Amino acid sequence: MKGLITVRDLGPDQLRAMIEEASLLRDMLDRHEEPDPALQGRCVANLFFEPSTRTRLSFELAAKRLGAHVLTLNPATSSASKGESLRDTVLTIAAVGADVMVVRHLEDGVPQSVAEWTGLAVVNGGDGTHEHPTQALLDAVTLSRHYEGLEGLRVGVVGDITHSRVAGSLLHVLPRLGMDVTLVAPTNWLPADTPHQTTTDFDAMIPELDVVYLLRVQTERGGRITDSYVGNFQLDEPRLARMRPDAIILHPGPINRGVEIADEVAESSRSLITEQVRNGVPTRMAVLRAVGL
Amino acid sequence: MKGLITVRDLGPDQLRAMIEEASLLRDMLDRHEEPDPALQGRCVANLFFEPSTRTRLSFELAAKRLGAHVLTLNPATSSASKGESLRDTVLTIAAVGADVMVVRHLEDGVPQSVAEWTGLAVVNGGDGTHEHPTQALLDAVTLSRHYEGLEGLRVGVVGDITHSRVAGSLLHVLPRLGMDVTLVAPTNWLPADTPHQTTTDFDAMIPELDVVYLLRVQTERGGRITDSYVGNFQLDEPRLARMRPDAIILHPGPINRGVEIADEVAESSRSLITEQVRNGVPTRMAVLRAVGL
Amino acid sequence: MKGLITVRDLGPDQLRAMIEEASLLRDMLDRHEEPDPALQGRCVANLFFEPSTRTRLSFELAAKRLGAHVLTLNPATSSASKGESLRDTVLTIAAVGADVMVVRHLEDGVPQSVAEWTGLAVVNGGDGTHEHPTQALLDAVTLSRHYEGLEGLRVGVVGDITHSRVAGSLLHVLPRLGMDVTLVAPTNWLPADTPHQTTTDFDAMIPELDVVYLLRVQTERGGRITDSYVGNFQLDEPRLARMRPDAIILHPGPINRGVEIADEVAESSRSLITEQVRNGVPTRMAVLRAVGL
Repeated sequence: MKGLITVRDLGPDQLRAMIEEASLLRDMLDRHEEPDPALQGRCVANLFFEPSTRTRLSFELAAKRLGAHVLTLNPATSSASKGESLRDTVLTIAAVGADVMVVRHLEDGVPQSVAEWTGLAVVNGGDGTHEHPTQALLDAVTLSRHYEGLEGLRVGVVGDITHSRVAGSLLHVLPRLGMDVTLVAPTNWLPADTPHQTTTDFDAMIPELDVVYLLRVQTERGGRITDSYVGNFQLDEPRLARMRPDAIILHPGPINRGVEIADEVAESSRSLITEQVRNGVPTRMAVLRAVGL
Repeated sequence: MKGLITVRDLGPDQLRAMIEEASLLRDMLDRHEEPDPALQGRCVANLFFEPSTRTRLSFELAAKRLGAHVLTLNPATSSASKGESLRDTVLTIAAVGADVMVVRHLEDGVPQSVAEWTGLAVVNGGDGTHEHPTQALLDAVTLSRHYEGLEGLRVGVVGDITHSRVAGSLLHVLPRLGMDVTLVAPTNWLPADTPHQTTTDFDAMIPELDVVYLLRVQTERGGRITDSYVGNFQLDEPRLARMRPDAIILHPGPINRGVEIADEVAESSRSLITEQVRNGVPTRMAVLRAVGL
Repeated sequence: MKGLITVRDLGPDQLRAMIEEASLLRDMLDRHEEPDPALQGRCVANLFFEPSTRTRLSFELAAKRLGAHVLTLNPATSSASKGESLRDTVLTIAAVGADVMVVRHLEDGVPQSVAEWTGLAVVNGGDGTHEHPTQALLDAVTLSRHYEGLEGLRVGVVGDITHSRVAGSLLHVLPRLGMDVTLVAPTNWLPADTPHQTTTDFDAMIPELDVVYLLRVQTERGGRITDSYVGNFQLDEPRLARMRPDAIILHPGPINRGVEIADEVAESSRSLITEQVRNGVPTRMAVLRAVGL
């Protein structure tokens, strides 16, 4: 595999193989077993041009667990402050000796550009409102560890779809694994042209869903929190009570508490949000191993 | 040992065992010997929500010398800037895969909260004006390497006791090791209710002391530097001359030069301030090993 | 070798030996071979008091490739913000356990001071307008990998010589390796007193040169970009066309595109700028190994 810019490059078999490997790695980590240091001596550069906790640390730990050297670029203290162009900064880090680059940027398409400029294996750590491939993969890992089979599961992707890079990847991954996706959002957050079923009526949809996937309102990228949104789309306790008894809740984080989800619901046993984070390192290990060898 | 939030949990025997182990590790480091990588494959997360040089780097190097992976959270570039709550940030880092968390925070009690939220082993790297356990331990290591026995030593803890997290730990550790403590400070910095002897007369006390432990005036936490304080409590050369010939000087750093201590005195052979810093890594290795296994 | 503060301490034989070792290490890295972990268990502290990408990451990766533990001081989040003096900060990090310090500072002479204060092996990562020894070494490595012999090569060092720490080292290294140096700059950027040939006429000089070494206009340190400079000294395509057919271009970076060099020229096959960066890690490995053992 030559980098991971978009999940659209991954067919169902590739997806399933990667999910399975990530899940095996998760089991190893839970048993405190050391994985094979497949990237020993290789160098993974983390280029996060946007703030991030979970994704940055998760890639960093994944790379270290594979034996790689990790370089982290902190844009604030780098030569970017000397007015160097993004391309020159990236080419410099490539020449310093990176074998793999993980790139997050507020603009769509930057990871693709980095791959073209450098010829290196690039993993998209989230670009603009475009894609966030490893998030969608770890979501699939979380689902595959919870359900016997993914085929036919009904998933509602709820909220700020317009500004969500997570949705950009998720809406390609879930159908390829046989899941049935419905977009649930106010009209202004529903894409004009989409192959998926859509609805603005969350309440009517709730009893139909196996998985309620809540998106973060992306206030950083133009998403606006309104009383009407909170009233009609927040997963609160009355709505939780109307979910199927075995239905689960996912959210890519960071949560806006009291917006997408009520506090008590985020903490409920139906929420697999912490499991999603736990699957981040093994999923990224599987990806880095696939692209870094 | 399940974390180290407060030294009050450590009895005299535990204290002595930990001091002895830290001292052996110090000897190994001085001989450039590699210690047993007891935390190989484990992950230590450094969560410093306040600026720090010596403590942060010291924990980082201690963890690396034990073979652990180290994650460092820089609050300024993390999702904290997306408005995530402290609890959510901490739970996320726990779920990413931390086995041990080292926590510094400007508020009392945060390390305890982190331990409750996560169930992980938490080491208090300094909280508010409450405690700074590893500082008190490394001070004890420094004393135990200098003196044959600690029993009966007379220690003056001098200065901004009110705002000092170091004092918060030290005043529990020293008596448990048999030392005799006197608090030396202006009236406004003496605690109203204390089991220790107190005095406002540093000059009268000086010839009685084996150890002069100078506290930093915590200007970050409300400590105010006054001419009267400098005049009556600065350890300057005339006061140094009146110390017992074998008495020593400690200070947890960073020093306010010309405030707690005169330049020439900080540099004198009576000052073990550099020794304190040197004992930081082996002391934190002993603590991390005790809590991380 | 006890540190590397200035290239003036290195005789021709020492220079040649270090260049040869760096070049062998470069070959190893290109073959993805693991070098001998000569600094296993040692600690290299990176103290960069100025923004830097290539130099900081390059030292960091060099140290890691040699098996060292790396501590990086980010001045913005350190106790420097508590008003601690530079000397106290440095002595603290030394006492924490650094074996080697890499120091970059905006003032001339700080690395020398750090060496005197600590007694440690110090590598100058660039100080003020004084020196940048590892840059000059990696430039020499780049030249030695391109040309069969360095003796007699004619090198033009072009531009902001006054504010350039790179020139401060380069102008000592090149002649010791038998190269013939001419300084090419507007009058105000030519040093008043120099043993080197000088000219203000870049166009007349171009056809004579084997190597065109373009310096960055150091806008951070008082260098001013003027239309007249760009018109008379920018290496653009017409000037490139007048270079000797086998002549090459070097630049220490970061490039001010459209100032020292035209975009198309920076990208041309005559430019070895990327090679310079690639030689950064093996050169710094050679230096760290020489000073860290």
